[in-house]
Amino acid sequence: MHFLSDNAAPAHPRILNALVEMNAAHAPPYGADGLTQEAEKALERLFDADVRAFLVSTGTAANALALAALVKPHGAVLVHEEAHVNVDECGAPEFFTAGAKLIPLPGSHGKLAPETIEAALARFHHGEHQVLPQAVSISNPTEMGCLYGPEEVQALAEVAHRHGLKLHMDGARLANAVAALDCEADALVRGVDVLSLGSSKGGTIHAEAVIFFDTALAVDFPRMRKRAGQLMAKMRYPAAQLLEWLKDDLWLDLAAHANAMARLLAARLDDFAAIELAAPVQTNMVFAWMPRRLQVALGEEGALFHVWREEEERVMVRLACSWMTAEEEIEALASAVALHGG
Amino acid sequence: MHFLSDNAAPAHPRILNALVEMNAAHAPPYGADGLTQEAEKALERLFDADVRAFLVSTGTAANALALAALVKPHGAVLVHEEAHVNVDECGAPEFFTAGAKLIPLPGSHGKLAPETIEAALARFHHGEHQVLPQAVSISNPTEMGCLYGPEEVQALAEVAHRHGLKLHMDGARLANAVAALDCEADALVRGVDVLSLGSSKGGTIHAEAVIFFDTALAVDFPRMRKRAGQLMAKMRYPAAQLLEWLKDDLWLDLAAHANAMARLLAARLDDFAAIELAAPVQTNMVFAWMPRRLQVALGEEGALFHVWREEEERVMVRLACSWMTAEEEIEALASAVALHGG
Amino acid sequence: MHFLSDNAAPAHPRILNALVEMNAAHAPPYGADGLTQEAEKALERLFDADVRAFLVSTGTAANALALAALVKPHGAVLVHEEAHVNVDECGAPEFFTAGAKLIPLPGSHGKLAPETIEAALARFHHGEHQVLPQAVSISNPTEMGCLYGPEEVQALAEVAHRHGLKLHMDGARLANAVAALDCEADALVRGVDVLSLGSSKGGTIHAEAVIFFDTALAVDFPRMRKRAGQLMAKMRYPAAQLLEWLKDDLWLDLAAHANAMARLLAARLDDFAAIELAAPVQTNMVFAWMPRRLQVALGEEGALFHVWREEEERVMVRLACSWMTAEEEIEALASAVALHGG
Amino acid sequence: MHFLSDNAAPAHPRILNALVEMNAAHAPPYGADGLTQEAEKALERLFDADVRAFLVSTGTAANALALAALVKPHGAVLVHEEAHVNVDECGAPEFFTAGAKLIPLPGSHGKLAPETIEAALARFHHGEHQVLPQAVSISNPTEMGCLYGPEEVQALAEVAHRHGLKLHMDGARLANAVAALDCEADALVRGVDVLSLGSSKGGTIHAEAVIFFDTALAVDFPRMRKRAGQLMAKMRYPAAQLLEWLKDDLWLDLAAHANAMARLLAARLDDFAAIELAAPVQTNMVFAWMPRRLQVALGEEGALFHVWREEEERVMVRLACSWMTAEEEIEALASAVALHGG
Repeated sequence: MHFLSDNAAPAHPRILNALVEMNAAHAPPYGADGLTQEAEKALERLFDADVRAFLVSTGTAANALALAALVKPHGAVLVHEEAHVNVDECGAPEFFTAGAKLIPLPGSHGKLAPETIEAALARFHHGEHQVLPQAVSISNPTEMGCLYGPEEVQALAEVAHRHGLKLHMDGARLANAVAALDCEADALVRGVDVLSLGSSKGGTIHAEAVIFFDTALAVDFPRMRKRAGQLMAKMRYPAAQLLEWLKDDLWLDLAAHANAMARLLAARLDDFAAIELAAPVQTNMVFAWMPRRLQVALGEEGALFHVWREEEERVMVRLACSWMTAEEEIEALASAVALHGG
Repeated sequence: MHFLSDNAAPAHPRILNALVEMNAAHAPPYGADGLTQEAEKALERLFDADVRAFLVSTGTAANALALAALVKPHGAVLVHEEAHVNVDECGAPEFFTAGAKLIPLPGSHGKLAPETIEAALARFHHGEHQVLPQAVSISNPTEMGCLYGPEEVQALAEVAHRHGLKLHMDGARLANAVAALDCEADALVRGVDVLSLGSSKGGTIHAEAVIFFDTALAVDFPRMRKRAGQLMAKMRYPAAQLLEWLKDDLWLDLAAHANAMARLLAARLDDFAAIELAAPVQTNMVFAWMPRRLQVALGEEGALFHVWREEEERVMVRLACSWMTAEEEIEALASAVALHGG
Repeated sequence: MHFLSDNAAPAHPRILNALVEMNAAHAPPYGADGLTQEAEKALERLFDADVRAFLVSTGTAANALALAALVKPHGAVLVHEEAHVNVDECGAPEFFTAGAKLIPLPGSHGKLAPETIEAALARFHHGEHQVLPQAVSISNPTEMGCLYGPEEVQALAEVAHRHGLKLHMDGARLANAVAALDCEADALVRGVDVLSLGSSKGGTIHAEAVIFFDTALAVDFPRMRKRAGQLMAKMRYPAAQLLEWLKDDLWLDLAAHANAMARLLAARLDDFAAIELAAPVQTNMVFAWMPRRLQVALGEEGALFHVWREEEERVMVRLACSWMTAEEEIEALASAVALHGG
Repeated sequence: MHFLSDNAAPAHPRILNALVEMNAAHAPPYGADGLTQEAEKALERLFDADVRAFLVSTGTAANALALAALVKPHGAVLVHEEAHVNVDECGAPEFFTAGAKLIPLPGSHGKLAPETIEAALARFHHGEHQVLPQAVSISNPTEMGCLYGPEEVQALAEVAHRHGLKLHMDGARLANAVAALDCEADALVRGVDVLSLGSSKGGTIHAEAVIFFDTALAVDFPRMRKRAGQLMAKMRYPAAQLLEWLKDDLWLDLAAHANAMARLLAARLDDFAAIELAAPVQTNMVFAWMPRRLQVALGEEGALFHVWREEEERVMVRLACSWMTAEEEIEALASAVALHGG
């Protein structure tokens, strides 16, 4: 009953096989090798665009470096108040941007609405006394597992661009979004200027990419990445992972499985009167309110998951499914809930 | 004839096997797993001390984060003018320290002498008008492949500590130093406050560690690492690499081979009148002056190496040996030199 | 009818006289002169404590440097969401702290309540994934002109200290607070660790001070100030201003006048049905809602003031009184309001 | 016998008179007032160009902000190894640029030669592994009191611009340079992209300016200045000082006097066998070697000056003349030297 996080799952066996197979010859270090170039081409095909892609070692680095390419130290990024960049990265965006400001904004289930952006921007009219909004950052899916569809992304891009801001998308779980919406990847990033694409939560060891759709923004990025300690000498290993992950739609198959498991899990939990779903289940995560005593009992039964929010009597938990989640785990959890008076 | 860099070699097969074997179950992310804890214990045993070790993704990150733990933004680090941190990391130390200053100092073959440190410190007596020297950083072996023996390290530590500075060692190739000196690892870091230990150049994919011997210095490090985008979600994979690398002295065997190949290469090259060794060959790298036309000819024969310095008629080249360098490559190079009038 | 800001007033004539009188001899630069040392002693007497005081050139520098002395780059400062440091200093705190995070919190009329601090701190329990709250910053009076009394300050200090945080007070208008509360200056800063004391809004040209009550926090401050471009060569000139300002309670007399003028202004405005006071008038500023057409009409009559907030039909304006505000200006404004159907 | 520094002199009486006269009415804060705009126009006339000028509170802030406008965090500034920005500002340039690197270069009497710039740039060819040189910074006069003439400045500008770098001039004592060369101010800054113009050492209290000749570089400067705590609320007071200083060539008259006093001082000292001038005396500072026992004796006689460099038996001292230096002080010093066996 391992629902702690999708990054607690191991890598998919195909990823390891790919590493074993490519681990033979010398290759130029620091990304000048053939595999890294192939990976970049694969991303270009995927997004049907003249992109520039840069591999980095973590999702936090991808997000923070992406934002540092968009805003100046006296700039600001409009974000959802619960966005990973705002609450879960220990100030990495502030570090990489040399002190730019994140402006936290409200929105249901982690989503930002165009009107919220507009209203926030209207407060910035005091010239040099205020930081300069230069980017909007959204997560798709959001930290609550909810989705922006292609039209919603484009509506946000339209507002951002109209005001001279750039749009960043945190795609740590983009695979889950593309699989859930059953759309083309490129349709979902239309209007996005820079994407952080994650694969670690989706089945690789680690292979995160910063992808510039507006390639003019990438001109300083090689030095920014090196300076940030993110230019891996043996870049070909994450490159090989990314290539295998994208090959034959492995990434979408794994994400679709995780999404299906989450739907099944939500359906099972919804049957219990004591449990109330806290957000629409659109990707691979289930958020649910349950009595505190039930949460404790499930923990004692060995179920692993995060407590997301706490009230006096009840808690909101997050249950994450991964490419490796099995139906048996879900049935075991449902049984445990039933046992403890769900 | 691949002498470009030791990080151009692939990972040793045992490293990949270790990854394949551990790639099965779920594990808590962000270093809370068993393998990461085992790796930390292995480093503790290795250095016979109550260390605190933190894995990061690159040597540049290891160095820059280590220095950021030692100096304040208004601080300074005394370094060799040709040190990797000073010339080859695109300002990463300045970035991670929020703008501390590296004070470049001279020394033959990349080594700093205690008198040089003393003389440099004597220039800092203008109080708040000057930055505050807070650390000395040395590379062992140096960027020219030369060694500090245990007594030399301790002499530098003595000077640094007497003036209230900490000592950092860049151990990107520490394995080569330990193998060459045939000493215990802990003997070579006596007096060091923080070590960057690299394994990527020694046979892993990547598994770099920042190791605090003065553990009080590590109190802020977890947040500093996270904030720097260096807290890998699946930390257990580099941990597994590090464990395998240290197991049964694999790390020293691989380093000893690379060192032996460099000695052989130096001996072959030294036979040619046109070639002059530029530094003592103490580890796995050979620095040699040769006529520019010979360098060009060797390049055309397919030999890969770095040009380190250039004069009108001649160039200094760096030839790096790795765990995978074969005697045949060296003989092939020697033949090519002979062919082109070495 | 000049109600734009108290820093739009000129310096009090006594301040200029003091400068003319001291402007004769050589003196050691960078604060090593006698006047600067006298100013520090005067602040020590004023606050009845073993303080350390540092002069800087602006209130923004005072606040940002004070916060940089309290929090690390991975730290956080709890602030009111409308605090000057959060909305009006173009990210200076983020710059001087090397990217620490300001956590914006709600509260009526710019005031933070102890419970609000407690509740905010309860959200920081994810270890290295989150920034580390290290300080609370309050403005007294607040940006809405409201006061924390001595007990309220101490209650906040108690909460902050209990959780290991330091307390900073932005005292850009502290004179107005001390005059309004008719208390001793030291009573109002009990529990405060670092104070930014402003005099520019109170009658000097500029002479702002960062005052450490916890002097251990000041150990790095000389270098931090120099590095920030705030170590004025001719420090004796702001020092002389500060000395004259504090002499014979000039600072309190000027503040008391400004406060009295604000009370009078509020009383006059309150008589008009169209105008509604928006905050208690406790110091030298009046916040009032009025119809937009009235605001426009007053502007056309030559009245100067800030529009603080805007709604469709009405606006909230800020009217600031200074040491130079004359009753005639207030009566003129009242007449203008009457004329335009207040 | 006060030769410590030109910033130890008080302000010229005309400067104080100007402040007294303008200290009457309200004025918009933060530089939106008439005097600040006049000061900007005066600088435009002075430099015969479409400049943009920004007042700040110290020379260190002027230099550091100017450099921050020219280089990115991953950039580098080529400087003389003894430049004020490199050794006397406690890392302010590194702070304001978010960690850019100063590359220290040699040169006699503080001057950089075009060939030195060329040779340094030739070392930057490793792409993203190295910081990116984006500016050259020179001091005119240098920290040793020596001059670059107009042709020399233009030659440096030519090299810088040809390589895509900008040219910054630290003009903390530009008045002394213009007076000494008897040229037009604008002739001396031809080719310069950004100038830090100081007046504090030349007779004001403080009124330092950052002046952009390439106004496109100034686009972010208002926010950079505010964020750095350098947007003074009562900007009109330094503006009034600058206006008075420039009026009727007061600045050049004061500088010419200081220069003449330095020439006289040098002539007197040169008569003594025990004293050896250490640099050409081209502006207001005299550098001289003397026996250590003589330096001590002069100190005991009450002479104030800086010891610039120390050897076993002798020291190099710096004697600075100011607008207030009197012939009597120089004769008194000469007598003291004679008395002590000069």
